Amino acid sequence: MMYKKSMIILGIDPGTATTGYGIIKIPDDILGREFDYGIELVTYGNIYTPKEKLMQDRLYMIYSELSGIIQKYKPDQMICEMLFFGANTRTAIMVGQARGVIMLTAAQHKIPFQDYTGPQIKLLVAGSGRADKNQVHDGVRKFLGTPGRRRNKLKLKRKGGHLDDATDALAIAICHVLKLASK
Amino acid sequence: MMYKKSMIILGIDPGTATTGYGIIKIPDDILGREFDYGIELVTYGNIYTPKEKLMQDRLYMIYSELSGIIQKYKPDQMICEMLFFGANTRTAIMVGQARGVIMLTAAQHKIPFQDYTGPQIKLLVAGSGRADKNQVHDGVRKFLGTPGRRRNKLKLKRKGGHLDDATDALAIAICHVLKLASK
Repeated sequence: MMYKKSMIILGIDPGTATTGYGIIKIPDDILGREFDYGIELVTYGNIYTPKEKLMQDRLYMIYSELSGIIQKYKPDQMICEMLFFGANTRTAIMVGQARGVIMLTAAQHKIPFQDYTGPQIKLLVAGSGRADKNQVHDGVRKFLGTPGRRRNKLKLKRKGGHLDDATDALAIAICHVLKLASK
Repeated sequence: MMYKKSMIILGIDPGTATTGYGIIKIPDDILGREFDYGIELVTYGNIYTPKEKLMQDRLYMIYSELSGIIQKYKPDQMICEMLFFGANTRTAIMVGQARGVIMLTAAQHKIPFQDYTGPQIKLLVAGSGRADKNQVHDGVRKFLGTPGRRRNKLKLKRKGGHLDDATDALAIAICHVLKLASK
């Protein structure tokens, strides 16, 4: 185990149009708990950038909003999804650009940064490297769903749509906790 | 023609290990000159990042050094090479990350940013979209080679090696001038 005190983890699902973020907290006594109940949801949301804007200005929006989130919640660790396969060059460049800005904010705030691939996240959060989006989101609700008030909040917000990326960001953060716990 | 006064152009060849930069100046009276003689070399060089460092720290080095170059030379325009084809996902992500940081510095300093693809740069600087590296570098020397002192400086420095990326960056900047001139 690598943590001795409570730890705030910021998960990020990078993208130019939508960058999802999810923040969770691991309590001090997580070693004595079931993981289903120990992870606390702090906040989650999306950074949207309008496609009419120039790409450099959209990246600057991601940078500014993310810097604000970091200053507000002071995460101890930033976790991001790494895209390895199955993307064309153009998509990979676009995701890479958003990732570059996200990694820069981590370095500027001296926050440790780590990557997991999609299959790693799916495996740890949903039990299979080939889980679909619904199974991953079910996994997120399982880990964050108690106490009930939080589960309802999460469900309610998702009904408004557009929270896929934020939920993915929570899955990314949870993945890191499960990885730490498995060491 | 889009420029009415002298203009400083910063060309950038993005990469994680080496980001080349080249700065040129177009004089006020460029409309009455031959292009071979009108473009002035301001400076060029490379930003190196050690591979032992964490990726986020290497991106932060690129960001910091590039910000310093921008503050010193105050470019009116930033030009970068766009990678479109022929790269695998991992390479595209890595180049994308460096590009993201470069585009962010452009946005932060409110400097217009523009892209050209490799074939566009080769076509304009070396006369063929399939020109090889030596032909592109010959094109750079042609456009920057007068007065002779500058040509010699460029040749001398290249003998030290590692200046391919800086020369590519100059080609990227020159490409933009030729594109403007062709309008």
